[in-house]
Amino acid sequence: MLTTPDFAEITPTAAIRKDRHGNRAKCLQRLVRLDMPVPPTVALSFDTVRAIADGRMPDLEALVGLFGPGALLSVRSSSETPDWGGPGTILNVGMCDATADALAETHGPDVAGAVYTRFIRSYAVHVHRLDADDFEGPITPRLAKAAYEAEMEEPFPQDPTVQLAEVLRSMARAWEGTTARLLRQAQGAPADAGLGLVVQKMALGPAQGISGAGVVQFISSDTGEPQITGRYLPRGQGRQALTEGAAQFIESDPRGPALEDVAPEQVQALRDAHGLMRKRLREEMQIEFTLMDGELSILDAVRTPRSARAEVAVAVALAESKVIPREEALNRIPPYTLNGLLHRQVKAGADRDVLTTGIPAAPGAATGKIVFSTTAATASAARGEPCILVRRETSPEDIRGMHAAQAILTERGGVTSHAAVIARGLGLPCVAGATSLQLDPRKKTITVPGRRVFHEGDIITLDGSSGEVLVGAAEMIEPALGGAFAKLMEWADDARDIGIRVNADTPEDAAMAQRFGVDGIGLCRTEHMFFDAIRMTVMREMIFAENAQDRAASLDRLLPMQREDFIKLFELMKGQPVTIRLFDPPLHEFLPRDREGIRALAEALDLPVSRVAQRIEALQEFNPMLGMRGVRLGITVPEIYEMQARAIFEATVASSEKGAAIVPEIMIPLVTACREVEIVKSAIDGIAAEVRTKSGVDFTYRLGVMVETPRAALRAGEIAEHSAFLSFGTNDLTQMTYGLSRDDAGRFMSAYVQQGVFSEDPFRQLDVDGVGELVLLGAERGRAARPELTLALCGEHGGHPESVDFSRRAGFDYVSCSPYRVPVAKLAAAQFAIRDKGLALDVKV
Amino acid sequence: MLTTPDFAEITPTAAIRKDRHGNRAKCLQRLVRLDMPVPPTVALSFDTVRAIADGRMPDLEALVGLFGPGALLSVRSSSETPDWGGPGTILNVGMCDATADALAETHGPDVAGAVYTRFIRSYAVHVHRLDADDFEGPITPRLAKAAYEAEMEEPFPQDPTVQLAEVLRSMARAWEGTTARLLRQAQGAPADAGLGLVVQKMALGPAQGISGAGVVQFISSDTGEPQITGRYLPRGQGRQALTEGAAQFIESDPRGPALEDVAPEQVQALRDAHGLMRKRLREEMQIEFTLMDGELSILDAVRTPRSARAEVAVAVALAESKVIPREEALNRIPPYTLNGLLHRQVKAGADRDVLTTGIPAAPGAATGKIVFSTTAATASAARGEPCILVRRETSPEDIRGMHAAQAILTERGGVTSHAAVIARGLGLPCVAGATSLQLDPRKKTITVPGRRVFHEGDIITLDGSSGEVLVGAAEMIEPALGGAFAKLMEWADDARDIGIRVNADTPEDAAMAQRFGVDGIGLCRTEHMFFDAIRMTVMREMIFAENAQDRAASLDRLLPMQREDFIKLFELMKGQPVTIRLFDPPLHEFLPRDREGIRALAEALDLPVSRVAQRIEALQEFNPMLGMRGVRLGITVPEIYEMQARAIFEATVASSEKGAAIVPEIMIPLVTACREVEIVKSAIDGIAAEVRTKSGVDFTYRLGVMVETPRAALRAGEIAEHSAFLSFGTNDLTQMTYGLSRDDAGRFMSAYVQQGVFSEDPFRQLDVDGVGELVLLGAERGRAARPELTLALCGEHGGHPESVDFSRRAGFDYVSCSPYRVPVAKLAAAQFAIRDKGLALDVKV
Repeated sequence: MLTTPDFAEITPTAAIRKDRHGNRAKCLQRLVRLDMPVPPTVALSFDTVRAIADGRMPDLEALVGLFGPGALLSVRSSSETPDWGGPGTILNVGMCDATADALAETHGPDVAGAVYTRFIRSYAVHVHRLDADDFEGPITPRLAKAAYEAEMEEPFPQDPTVQLAEVLRSMARAWEGTTARLLRQAQGAPADAGLGLVVQKMALGPAQGISGAGVVQFISSDTGEPQITGRYLPRGQGRQALTEGAAQFIESDPRGPALEDVAPEQVQALRDAHGLMRKRLREEMQIEFTLMDGELSILDAVRTPRSARAEVAVAVALAESKVIPREEALNRIPPYTLNGLLHRQVKAGADRDVLTTGIPAAPGAATGKIVFSTTAATASAARGEPCILVRRETSPEDIRGMHAAQAILTERGGVTSHAAVIARGLGLPCVAGATSLQLDPRKKTITVPGRRVFHEGDIITLDGSSGEVLVGAAEMIEPALGGAFAKLMEWADDARDIGIRVNADTPEDAAMAQRFGVDGIGLCRTEHMFFDAIRMTVMREMIFAENAQDRAASLDRLLPMQREDFIKLFELMKGQPVTIRLFDPPLHEFLPRDREGIRALAEALDLPVSRVAQRIEALQEFNPMLGMRGVRLGITVPEIYEMQARAIFEATVASSEKGAAIVPEIMIPLVTACREVEIVKSAIDGIAAEVRTKSGVDFTYRLGVMVETPRAALRAGEIAEHSAFLSFGTNDLTQMTYGLSRDDAGRFMSAYVQQGVFSEDPFRQLDVDGVGELVLLGAERGRAARPELTLALCGEHGGHPESVDFSRRAGFDYVSCSPYRVPVAKLAAAQFAIRDKGLALDVKV
Repeated sequence: MLTTPDFAEITPTAAIRKDRHGNRAKCLQRLVRLDMPVPPTVALSFDTVRAIADGRMPDLEALVGLFGPGALLSVRSSSETPDWGGPGTILNVGMCDATADALAETHGPDVAGAVYTRFIRSYAVHVHRLDADDFEGPITPRLAKAAYEAEMEEPFPQDPTVQLAEVLRSMARAWEGTTARLLRQAQGAPADAGLGLVVQKMALGPAQGISGAGVVQFISSDTGEPQITGRYLPRGQGRQALTEGAAQFIESDPRGPALEDVAPEQVQALRDAHGLMRKRLREEMQIEFTLMDGELSILDAVRTPRSARAEVAVAVALAESKVIPREEALNRIPPYTLNGLLHRQVKAGADRDVLTTGIPAAPGAATGKIVFSTTAATASAARGEPCILVRRETSPEDIRGMHAAQAILTERGGVTSHAAVIARGLGLPCVAGATSLQLDPRKKTITVPGRRVFHEGDIITLDGSSGEVLVGAAEMIEPALGGAFAKLMEWADDARDIGIRVNADTPEDAAMAQRFGVDGIGLCRTEHMFFDAIRMTVMREMIFAENAQDRAASLDRLLPMQREDFIKLFELMKGQPVTIRLFDPPLHEFLPRDREGIRALAEALDLPVSRVAQRIEALQEFNPMLGMRGVRLGITVPEIYEMQARAIFEATVASSEKGAAIVPEIMIPLVTACREVEIVKSAIDGIAAEVRTKSGVDFTYRLGVMVETPRAALRAGEIAEHSAFLSFGTNDLTQMTYGLSRDDAGRFMSAYVQQGVFSEDPFRQLDVDGVGELVLLGAERGRAARPELTLALCGEHGGHPESVDFSRRAGFDYVSCSPYRVPVAKLAAAQFAIRDKGLALDVKV
């Protein structure tokens, strides 16, 4: 048998529950418990609202009776979580000819007419979905009622319970609508999420004295710093003050008297209320209030809206004033929020003339002139003019250009393309796979269908966080890495239980990473050290060497450069571990591709162009990702690894002599067979012995393997017998497990994720079911063979919260990620550690 | 305590064992047991020979005593398996001044002098490693002894026991030499393989009457057909008859009297001996014999040397004459031996002017004119002139040229490159990765350093079994697929316990496969149906379609062609299962790469060249193997799979109406996620329902998945829930498990295998440890989820004996391989089945 759905007046002892009446109802009860001057309020539970949607009304006579005769009511939604939304507030329920007349007497006919007209309009539009146009303009209640009657073929209802019934029904049904459902599910709401409603007596009072409505908050939404911000509209209602230009400021108003000037006691009462809420609700609240002939009512309070930066500032401030424990401050910040602090951002609310949208591949924003080549980028940088490097895709020879540019835009590629990976490493914003760009590198133009043609030198803004390319210079906000952010990182370091290292390829990278604080370098990709112009030339000479002797001569020139790099790295890392990956990419990545580059190289090498072109062609591969690279190169052309090992050991000796005891970690890439490790290990042991003898300095080193192929994971047991550590390179492992190149995935990945073929882009989020199984299996076999084995996860996934948790659970020693991911990884690691300690943090008032 | 090493006279009851005295000793005992006229013979065991090498001699006085005074002795090696080799025979041990004098009396001084000189030379050269040049030419015993004494600084030994001791010691030590050891280990000998020695009294008799030595066999070594072949040298020794032009034939000799003409009884005795050996030794034996004044001695008998074809003929003949059971006939043929029958081969012993050597990528040999393009190949074929297509590498657009050519030669690639795979499918010889060729496609020349330049039209011979490229036309032998071969295949079909299907892409392939007899088609790669000129054009139109409608129009033109293909396939396969893999390769494989082709395409499509070039460039991929292909294409451009499904179902209906009940099997390529299967399945189910309704014919079909990515293997459990079968495509699975493209592996694979980094090329032999583990894991998870699941292995490995056994043990239903691998796979499957039944076949006499 169906019972009559019920409602409850919000009193300190009423059984109001967030999971039954929603967040707003619960928050209002807390305000009531704190003796805040909240007007009489009734809460309708999720069940009641569901019953209303099904056509069963609570006893509205009784409900309205609670507020006394002639009361005007507001109805607000109260979902379990504010993010899940809900239908908009409806004010002034109960307005009818009789209440209008009464109001005219107390507030004058203008106020009464305006309130009544506004209610009729909102009732017509929101409750009965009539055309808003018919109720626009300066119409009177009479005209509004006539318009209503013309559409509805019945007079505007005069009975407050009828009005309330219709309002409740329309709100209950709006919640069930498809759009509303999809929107809240996108915010994580379950399919059966309920809506509560809150009916409150409105405090619209006499026109005499200080009467009106306002909204106030006590921090800056941008910075989180203490600062009273708000608006108050005399004789206003609800949140009108926020949109009416005539509204007063709260503390001081250059245009005339502020609210505090006319009502200092009431403003102080608001300050006190805020202080009490901050302490007891343990949150920064924004307050909606009314004054009725000077008497303060607090209608509602919500979490103060805030930027990422403010969010961190508030959490840290609450913890520092002991309102919440540090662990809770850490827990309150969704890790990716930190991306909003680390980079310049397009200011929220700034004008955005969106030219096109690509894949947001590296966060942050930058403005600059379009350039199409490394040469143009370096020239622009030399002139001190910020530039954006625009390429079809990038290759290692673009690295210098990327260093010179403020941001990278590519026509092809995805979130793990070369451009994206390097950009994140450099901390540059990057938009990749902007496929609607028609790039003509010869004419030096970008064409977007339906837009004007853009030329080299035109100014654009790249928003790597949203993927948008904006025309012209957009307004920016700067990163804020000190203060609250630094404090939060310190607390995260205390809380976390897994190492966080950084992927840093050059001394510059390492210096940058040290700003965030790391546990060492987990991946130093030595090939990135060869991208400057001089070294590139020597590299090319080495590649073109006709015999081992010539090759050795080139490598001899590279040796001191590499040694210097390592000495600097060791110095910067102050004894922290540094994992150096031996040369990995195919040699042809170091060769030019265009005719101009080939001609220049031929000149530099004093060889005929045809010979150079032929050699370049001979080195081309069908599938470079699956070709002659990594340890395959190391075994086939052993001189390269030998040079690198020598440079590492000589740097170790040099650094040790300065006092820092260094134990370098050398990592072999792209291993598939145990024997590869044995061969490289034996060669490197030989070099170590040689350097020890020559220098007379004893040192040790650790040799490990980068597990990037499924086979290396499967054979991790025997590989571990020769390895001090295994570091899982999940980028390549994902490529091979899926048989999917990250550079070619862009073509269909977004469609695949949208259609739910893949639940997530596996290059963005570690595929726990497939790739993850291989990682776990490799880790298990490795540890079984060698219990003291160090285990790590490096590569792009390393900085993702899910991967950090995955690695913790698998008992890994550390994850390693690009510098700008370090804060996110640290915070996530702290949160997981806190979660697993099972701290009960969500204390209720 | 060391005992004196011993020896045993070979008598019927002596304890002679193959694993202790070697194969020759055991064989001689068998001849003795068969009452053959074998001269007195002593066997030295492996242990005895080892002791001799260590300096401990058996009691040689006693040994020599067994043969009576003045006897001349031969010493032969007797390893456990003839393939393991051993030092060469030494004759006439015991020759000294005294025996020479005695011999001069019976045989005359010339014979005695020649025998003595020969012995001194062979003793000097083979026992004491003196320079052979010093003992060449027509020297006398006196001169030979002088030369010996000059070098050795001691007189030539006159004591037979001293001679024998030195001979035994030198042979025992030669066996321990590094080269000998490596050679026999390459033949599969264990590290501690032993050498036995056989000392036999020589039958050198009086010069009077019929005296001499000969070798005879009773089959043709080329064909295995019965035929007496042999040579007899009057007054000769050992195998001299085989090298002396003056030797007589056995049965009839056009140059003069044959042995049978002078000694008919003795030849009949040899015939009888052969017949007895065949029956009791269960093998075709070649006999070494002497006549001494008409008295026949049988000195030795060895397995008659034979070609692959003869090997099959002998095994089948032995089984048909009930000498051995059929199972043993099957077991006696190493499966790869069959490659020597299926293809034309360069005749053994033919002149070979080797230009260069590449990777033997598809067996058989062919002679033809060099051509450098598909156009030239087709033109040559049209003129009826055999040609060899020479390319840097091949791509799908070369398929027509490959069809027109007799063989394929490529500069790049390896055993599983495009050229190799297609060539094996077509049964054409292929040499791939002939990297020393300098190919200039524009000048149409091949240059090999140090050789003349070769031009289009020059004649070469390709030996795809050895990898050699020969100058000019080499002498060939033709394949022999009837008779014994057909019988052997029939027996293999009876014996084997796993299905063998064929990879056949076109009706032509299927027709060819039916010559070998198969259990169905395990892999029909539908894209190969699009390679003829007309279809290629329609394909390209489809790729260039601006919208779904235009694409549909092109596909509508392809539909009837595909349908016809399938109707023909179903007809040819007569109700046997046909597994059709949906379109797999990236679309850009169908587009031209060179300027000429692009211009032609632009003309055909009536589009500007720049537009065509742009589209081609846009479709290029960094790693095509890991890109937009397989089911990714099927989901992104669903019209292609829909067309194919429709063609399959309409062909099913058409064939069913002719009476053949067809249950087509549709296979989805490159799956990584369960959802991909669900999406394709639901689309195909829809097409099936549509075709059923339209045709009014009911039919069923089976949908399955090609497991080619590590992830598909890992997720096989959930994938199997939507699949009737899983077929493991080990080519791609190997590429991805190793992170190694088969097209790029050629650069270092041979070095890797030589250095033992990989024990085998994993594209040649299934990597059981890595790839194999994924296959087993996938099979296990698949069967756990769906016990009735059909499991198969397709791809290049499918035809390898190791993979056949792997698949049997894993409980697979069938393997599928290219047509010319089918006989090998069948034979291997039969052998494994026989092995597992534990039949005791190696019956001893």
